[in-house]
Amino acid sequence: QSSVTLFGVLDATYAYGSGSLSNKSQLTNSGIGGSRLGFRGTEDMGGGLSASFWIEAGVNNDDGTGTATDTNNQANSSGGGGLAFNRRSTVSLGGGFGEVRLGRDYTPQFTNLTAFDPFGTNGVGSNQMLVSSVGGPTRVRASNSIGYILPGNLGGFYGQAMYYLGENSSNSANKKDGNGLGLRAGYKNGPIDAALAFSQTKYLTGDIKTVNLGGQYDLGMVKLMAQYSQDKATKRGTGKGMLAGGTVPMGPGEIDFSYSTYKLDVAGPVDPRTNLLAVGYTYNLSKRTALYTTFARASNKGGATIALAGATTAANTNSNGYNFGLRHSF
Amino acid sequence: QSSVTLFGVLDATYAYGSGSLSNKSQLTNSGIGGSRLGFRGTEDMGGGLSASFWIEAGVNNDDGTGTATDTNNQANSSGGGGLAFNRRSTVSLGGGFGEVRLGRDYTPQFTNLTAFDPFGTNGVGSNQMLVSSVGGPTRVRASNSIGYILPGNLGGFYGQAMYYLGENSSNSANKKDGNGLGLRAGYKNGPIDAALAFSQTKYLTGDIKTVNLGGQYDLGMVKLMAQYSQDKATKRGTGKGMLAGGTVPMGPGEIDFSYSTYKLDVAGPVDPRTNLLAVGYTYNLSKRTALYTTFARASNKGGATIALAGATTAANTNSNGYNFGLRHSF
Amino acid sequence: QSSVTLFGVLDATYAYGSGSLSNKSQLTNSGIGGSRLGFRGTEDMGGGLSASFWIEAGVNNDDGTGTATDTNNQANSSGGGGLAFNRRSTVSLGGGFGEVRLGRDYTPQFTNLTAFDPFGTNGVGSNQMLVSSVGGPTRVRASNSIGYILPGNLGGFYGQAMYYLGENSSNSANKKDGNGLGLRAGYKNGPIDAALAFSQTKYLTGDIKTVNLGGQYDLGMVKLMAQYSQDKATKRGTGKGMLAGGTVPMGPGEIDFSYSTYKLDVAGPVDPRTNLLAVGYTYNLSKRTALYTTFARASNKGGATIALAGATTAANTNSNGYNFGLRHSF
Repeated sequence: QSSVTLFGVLDATYAYGSGSLSNKSQLTNSGIGGSRLGFRGTEDMGGGLSASFWIEAGVNNDDGTGTATDTNNQANSSGGGGLAFNRRSTVSLGGGFGEVRLGRDYTPQFTNLTAFDPFGTNGVGSNQMLVSSVGGPTRVRASNSIGYILPGNLGGFYGQAMYYLGENSSNSANKKDGNGLGLRAGYKNGPIDAALAFSQTKYLTGDIKTVNLGGQYDLGMVKLMAQYSQDKATKRGTGKGMLAGGTVPMGPGEIDFSYSTYKLDVAGPVDPRTNLLAVGYTYNLSKRTALYTTFARASNKGGATIALAGATTAANTNSNGYNFGLRHSF
Repeated sequence: QSSVTLFGVLDATYAYGSGSLSNKSQLTNSGIGGSRLGFRGTEDMGGGLSASFWIEAGVNNDDGTGTATDTNNQANSSGGGGLAFNRRSTVSLGGGFGEVRLGRDYTPQFTNLTAFDPFGTNGVGSNQMLVSSVGGPTRVRASNSIGYILPGNLGGFYGQAMYYLGENSSNSANKKDGNGLGLRAGYKNGPIDAALAFSQTKYLTGDIKTVNLGGQYDLGMVKLMAQYSQDKATKRGTGKGMLAGGTVPMGPGEIDFSYSTYKLDVAGPVDPRTNLLAVGYTYNLSKRTALYTTFARASNKGGATIALAGATTAANTNSNGYNFGLRHSF
Repeated sequence: QSSVTLFGVLDATYAYGSGSLSNKSQLTNSGIGGSRLGFRGTEDMGGGLSASFWIEAGVNNDDGTGTATDTNNQANSSGGGGLAFNRRSTVSLGGGFGEVRLGRDYTPQFTNLTAFDPFGTNGVGSNQMLVSSVGGPTRVRASNSIGYILPGNLGGFYGQAMYYLGENSSNSANKKDGNGLGLRAGYKNGPIDAALAFSQTKYLTGDIKTVNLGGQYDLGMVKLMAQYSQDKATKRGTGKGMLAGGTVPMGPGEIDFSYSTYKLDVAGPVDPRTNLLAVGYTYNLSKRTALYTTFARASNKGGATIALAGATTAANTNSNGYNFGLRHSF
C-alpha cells in the first residue's frame, strides 16, 4: 500500500593501527562506506509537488549495535547502543521551489567537506580536517534542523541552507547552546565542481564559525580534488587545514589518494599540526559489492597526538593504519 | 516469501511554548500524529483462523532517536535512545471468537481516552485528562499483556479486555506492582459512537482505578465529541476531568477544537486544576500528507503549573503553545 | 532496486516458574523460537560468486525492547534496550571455496550445542549445558569475527572456523581479553548427523577451552539426540555435561523431550550439579504458526541453585517451570 525503499550498506573491514604507545587490531566497519540501514520513499502529489521521507540508521555491523546520535546539537548528549536513525531522519516537501527538509541531516558545512574528499571521510584515509576539527557537535550532522535546498534546474548552480535548534529553555544559562546556521553554494558543469560552505554555531563552550571551500576537476584519467577549511572557535583557537588528492580509475575499480593537513593556532609557542598521507584501492566485484584496502600515515608536530585505527601515539610521533574490507550495498 | 507491510508516519513540527517562567522553541515531532516505523502482517490459516503480528516503534524524527518503553509496567523502568517497538509489539490469534493478542499495546482505558479526543491526544492540543492524569505507567500502554478483543460482527457492539503483568518475584515487597486489568465496551451505529472503559492497576505507590466514558455524534458539518474521566489513586487523591470538542470538515482538511479540564482532589484547602483550550487546522495535501497548525492555551488554578510545548510556568499562571508541521504517512 | 528479505519470529509465551524461595509469573518471549526481526539478501555476482548480508535483531516482544549485544566479546559490555542486530550482523563473500563471513554471529561451539538439543536451547527446556555453562561471553555469539564455512558439496562433511577479536590496545593489561577461536566439523548422511566442536577463548578472568560432541539419529517415529560437553575454565574449574533426548512427530506437531545434566568440578568437597528434565508439545496451526507448551524440572545438588523461568530456589532444592505460547514467523 506504500512504496518504501529499504536500503543499506554493510562494510566490514579489518583495521590495524600502530602508534608509538599502542597498536590495535580490529574487525570494524565503514572502511570506505558508512554502514547503514534505511527506509525512504517519495509520494508524488501532483502539480509538481512531492512529499518524501528518509530515515537512516548507522549500523556497527562488526557487533550489531547502532551508532549514537545527538538530540540537541550540544556536547554530551548522544544515544546508546540501540538502533537510531542518527544518520538521517527527515520529512520533506518538494516542488518547483526546491525542497524544505525537516529533521536530522548532514550540515551544509560537512556536505562540502566530504564531497571533495577522495575517501569520502571514511576509514583510515579520512580527511584530517574532519578528524582534527574543533567544529563541535554539529560538524557532521544536526538534529532539529529546518533545511532548504535549491531546485536542480539552475544551470549548474546549487545551494542549501540549514537552521538548527538547540532547544533550550529561554531562562537557561545556555539558552542558545546548539543553535546554528549552515550555508552552501556551488557550481557544477562538465568536469568542474566547486562549492563554498559557511556555518556559525553557538556553543556554551565557545561559538564556532567555519568556512570550507572545495572543488574537483575531472581529467578523465584522474579526478583531482582540493579543499581549504577554517574553524574559528571562540576560546579554543583557530584551526586551518587543506587537502589535495584525487581518484584514478583502474581496471574494475579505482585508486584514491590524498594528502591533508590541519593546524590549530592556540595560545603558546607551539601549534599542534597533523599531516595525513593516504592511498587506497577499491576493486568492484559488482556494482553493489567491492573489496578494498587503504593505507595511511599520520605525522604529528607541535604536540599533536593523532593516531589511526584505534592506536595511540605520543606527541610528535607517527601512526600508521590500514583497512582491508568488503563493502556490500542493498 | 512472507507478506510483511512496512508502514509509518513521520510528523515534523515546529513547536513554540510560552509560560511565565520560560519559553521554548523546538523542531519536534508528532504534532498531530505519532511518528513511527512499523512492520505488520496477517497470515490466513484457513477455517476463519488467522495469525498476525504488529511491531511498531516510536521515532523522534527530529533527532533520529527511538522513544522509550516500560518493560514491567512500573515507574522508572523505561528504555534508552535506541529504536524499540514501544508503541506496539504484539502477536495474535484471530477467528470467529475474536482476537487474542499478546505483548505490548494500548490499554483499553487509553483507547477510550484518545478515541473521543479531536486531537487524538497529540501535540499542544492533547487532552488535559491525559496530560494531568495520575493514571500511572500504564495510562497509555502496557507491556506483558494478554488481551482479548470481541469480533466485529456484534451489531455495533464492541469490546475488549486486557490483563497485564508486573512480573515481580513472589517474595518481593512489590510483588503486585504493575499488575492490572482494563476493560472497554462500546456501541457504534451510524453517526453515534459511545464507549465506557474501566481499569484497575496495582502500584507500590498506591493502586489506581480509572473510569472513562466518551462518545461522539456526527452531524455531518460537525462531529461533536465529549468525555468524562476519573482517576482514583490511593494515597494521591482523585482526579476528575472532562472534554468537549469536535471536528469540522473544511476544504481539503478539517478544523479541530476542544476544551478539556482536569482537577485533582488532594488533601488541603486548594485543588490544582488546569483548563485547556485548543484549536487547529489540518490541510491535506494528499491522502498521506498534510500541513497543519494547532494553537492551545492552558490556564492553571489551585497551584497547578501545567505548561505547553516545553515551556515552564509558575503556579496559577497561563501558558500558550503552538505547533506548525508536516505529517507524512507511508 | 534491491531484493531484501524482511523476516522474523514473534514468540509470545506465558511462563511460570516455582522455586523454594520465590515464584514468578510472566508474559515473556522466545519459548520455543527466538523472537527477532531481520533483513537479509544475496547478490549473485556471476561466476559462482555471491555477496550476501544478514542483520537480525532480537526483539523482546512482550515489551518491545531489543535484546543486548556484546561489542568486544568481554564481560560487562552489552547494549541497552534499543533494537540492535545482536543476533546476527554479517556480510559475506561466497563461492565454490565456501563462504567468508564477517561480523557478529553464532560461535561454532554454540552451533553444535543448539543443533542437537530437542528444544533448540529455547525456553524452560533449554539445555542445562548452556544454562550452567562457564563458557563466558562468547558461549553463544561473538562480535568482530572472521568466519569461514566449508562449501555444501563435500559428500555430507561440513565444517566451519571462526576467529574473533577482543580489540584491546596492545599496551593494555587485558590485551587478549575476548580473543578466541572456534572450530566445528561434522558429517550428515540420511538419518545420521554428528559433529564435534572446539573453542578456545582468552579472558582476563581465565581462559576457557570447550569441547562439544553431539549427534542425532532419525528413526522416523522418533529422532534421538545426544551430546557431551566440557568447559575447561582456568581459575574456575571444569564443567562437564551431557544431554539425551529426542523429538516424536505426533499429529500436526511434535513432542520434544530431553534430560540434561551439568556438573562443575570446583575446589572443595562438593561439586554443584543440576539435572534438567523437560517435555513439550508443539502444535502447528500452519507452517508459520504454532501453539506450544513445555514443562521442565531442575534438580540441584552440591550447592547448585538453578531455577526456571525467573523463579529463585535455595541450594539443593528443585524448581519447576512451564511455558505456554504462540510462535509466529514472517
